[in-house]
Amino acid sequence: MRDLATTPECLSINTATFGHRIDIDAVIDLCQQRGIGAIAPWRRDLEGHSVARVAARLRTANIGVSGYCRSTYFTHTDEAGRRAALEDNMRAVDDAAELGATCFVLVVGGIPAGSRDLAGAREQVQTGVAALLEHARKAKVPLALEPLHPMTAADRSCLSTLGQALDWCDEIDPCGQGLGVAVDVYHVWWDPALQSQIVRAMQGRRVLGYHVSDWLVPTNDLVLDRGMMGDGVIDLKRIRGWLEDAGYDGAVEVEIFSAANWWKRPATDVLDTCIERLHTVC
Amino acid sequence: MRDLATTPECLSINTATFGHRIDIDAVIDLCQQRGIGAIAPWRRDLEGHSVARVAARLRTANIGVSGYCRSTYFTHTDEAGRRAALEDNMRAVDDAAELGATCFVLVVGGIPAGSRDLAGAREQVQTGVAALLEHARKAKVPLALEPLHPMTAADRSCLSTLGQALDWCDEIDPCGQGLGVAVDVYHVWWDPALQSQIVRAMQGRRVLGYHVSDWLVPTNDLVLDRGMMGDGVIDLKRIRGWLEDAGYDGAVEVEIFSAANWWKRPATDVLDTCIERLHTVC
Repeated sequence: MRDLATTPECLSINTATFGHRIDIDAVIDLCQQRGIGAIAPWRRDLEGHSVARVAARLRTANIGVSGYCRSTYFTHTDEAGRRAALEDNMRAVDDAAELGATCFVLVVGGIPAGSRDLAGAREQVQTGVAALLEHARKAKVPLALEPLHPMTAADRSCLSTLGQALDWCDEIDPCGQGLGVAVDVYHVWWDPALQSQIVRAMQGRRVLGYHVSDWLVPTNDLVLDRGMMGDGVIDLKRIRGWLEDAGYDGAVEVEIFSAANWWKRPATDVLDTCIERLHTVC
Repeated sequence: MRDLATTPECLSINTATFGHRIDIDAVIDLCQQRGIGAIAPWRRDLEGHSVARVAARLRTANIGVSGYCRSTYFTHTDEAGRRAALEDNMRAVDDAAELGATCFVLVVGGIPAGSRDLAGAREQVQTGVAALLEHARKAKVPLALEPLHPMTAADRSCLSTLGQALDWCDEIDPCGQGLGVAVDVYHVWWDPALQSQIVRAMQGRRVLGYHVSDWLVPTNDLVLDRGMMGDGVIDLKRIRGWLEDAGYDGAVEVEIFSAANWWKRPATDVLDTCIERLHTVC
């Protein structure tokens, strides 16, 4: 395994970790000062900015983009909604290309309002991803299917496990031309098939990103109560070991949604704590 | 599929649905008045009562016991804790035998406090279940492994999917002598492997219980915010269809934890709503 304390170029900070409170230029400044290798910006953090200008700043600062977050949901009650989502996602792919992002992260959406058709929602996603993939290949932006925790299956992601994501990769992109996965420990740590699916994912060259945070006990919110690495129960070194033993050499990206705690702290404190925990417990 | 509106003997009410507010005798009265075929009592609801007397009352009322809830957690930080849990579970199995319960429901426990060893917790459970199974076979009480939603993996159940539960059945009880599963839609509805694992479970004669409630959007608590059937997004008829197409003819048991809603309503309203929803949307 890599020693993250001596490889700052492997570290990445997802801008959501700051609670979308500070400007993208401030994020770049903070990360550059600390030698962080990459960031993963959200689209909302670039609103009102020239993507070309931000991309140039990142290049000058020698900061990569470990992922661009994230897709508009693919699932909708009608075809017009799905078409609008696809077009929006195409624009985001173009921005991801300009940023030189390692991948465009796909959070796929849950069951459309008023429906109970989980299987139908999953079909909608597969159709939408296949369509987006054609555009993404032209733009040379890999798409990363991110399975989200099953507790979000109704309203955020009907894609719930790494195995399911890899099944979709095999179906939609059998030759491995542009579709992969993002492995976020918060979403998949519980999965009894995690180790075997990580090996499968690495063998298929599908892993486009690796995200860390922690699962708190108790967890008080289904979305916004993630923990800082080390404060919860996830065996982070073990999971990274599985990935790196199988050849993973990409970024280790911190993504923490924490409305009641970390999002209330000064960004410098958040970032310095992330770095310290990346060095010691990840 | 069975018509639940004309087969009241197939219906069961888990006493947790009433929020543990009313006496077991009152539960029996309410269910007898409505011709409900079975109940699933919790151990706490029998405290202070003679199990033999309750068992006799149920027999007289022609009310079955679709399951006895539930095991003390198998996972502990030390051997003494695991031994105490096993002994407590043995006593519960004896009570389940006296009640004539279809099964003793196993909620297995999460990761012991202070640990991050999820695999180790799972090994603890398998060891404990194997030990309990010896006792349960003598008592002629089937044990039902209940996979709980992955959002409870840290603090309630490191057994997270139906497939995992069936793997454990095959390992611990390869000849199918007393170990099976309880399928609770709330915990497994999201699983992309659900249909195939239900078929597998039925082929192995492993399904000892089927529990219904619903997944609300939004869900505001990880444990106590279950919905009444029909109020959420679970396609209940589809899942019951998978079970019954594969031969399931056991009880359909309502188990709703709802601190902010149903547990505040009069027990008669809760029960009558359960029955109406069992008749119409399950």
